[in-house]
Amino acid sequence: MTEESVIPLRVEDARIGRLATVSGDGRPHVVPCCFAVVGRVLYSAVDAKPKSSLALKRLSNIRANPSAALIVDHYEEDWSALWWVRLDGTARVVESASERQGALERLAAKYPQYRATVPPGPVIAIDVQTWRCWPEP
Amino acid sequence: MTEESVIPLRVEDARIGRLATVSGDGRPHVVPCCFAVVGRVLYSAVDAKPKSSLALKRLSNIRANPSAALIVDHYEEDWSALWWVRLDGTARVVESASERQGALERLAAKYPQYRATVPPGPVIAIDVQTWRCWPEP
Repeated sequence: MTEESVIPLRVEDARIGRLATVSGDGRPHVVPCCFAVVGRVLYSAVDAKPKSSLALKRLSNIRANPSAALIVDHYEEDWSALWWVRLDGTARVVESASERQGALERLAAKYPQYRATVPPGPVIAIDVQTWRCWPEP
Repeated sequence: MTEESVIPLRVEDARIGRLATVSGDGRPHVVPCCFAVVGRVLYSAVDAKPKSSLALKRLSNIRANPSAALIVDHYEEDWSALWWVRLDGTARVVESASERQGALERLAAKYPQYRATVPPGPVIAIDVQTWRCWPEP
């Protein structure tokens, strides 16, 4: 397997990523999130936690500034084994019922936790424009 | 131990955080980073990797927009055990030689990897203004 082909797998297999967005007044926000990949789109659901201001921040940021970045990485004490992949793109709240359904199915296929409880909140899509990784292939 | 006192420990003990900054044109950037906590300041070093554009992005963002957020979190498949702590603050590149020295000592105390190789690059300080955590205490 070439280094190039391992990168999408690292992203698909990751159980968690960290999603960065920017508020309307230019401040960064970052939150861990589960996600699924469908082609060049990442999907993440706002799950069944109480809808606090924290959960809504992600959504209001996306509406004010759709730029988003998601990082997937690996840490261990042997620093020669570290890696990360960052996906930069444009985020949107999914409005289409069929796209939402497809995203929830993909999330449920990846996470048994979502099969037990379908996330009732909005689904965020990130249309990925660029992938960067470290170490560089 | 109360829930309140466990939160600073979770941050101090974390081996890695993810640092979000914003570029001059309002795009989010996020990168995994090692860090040490000294009071209400987080320190992170740009280590000995080749100084690619990736490493410099963090620094140019901070100069353009000093707002920064660092997240520390815990993932496991039992989602009832998930938690995160997010620190929001103002980032700066450390200019003072004595502050740099103190930060490098604290980083070396936390990470044996830094005792083997002192990071030669700039040290970033984040003066923390707010801590948020989930679940809420």
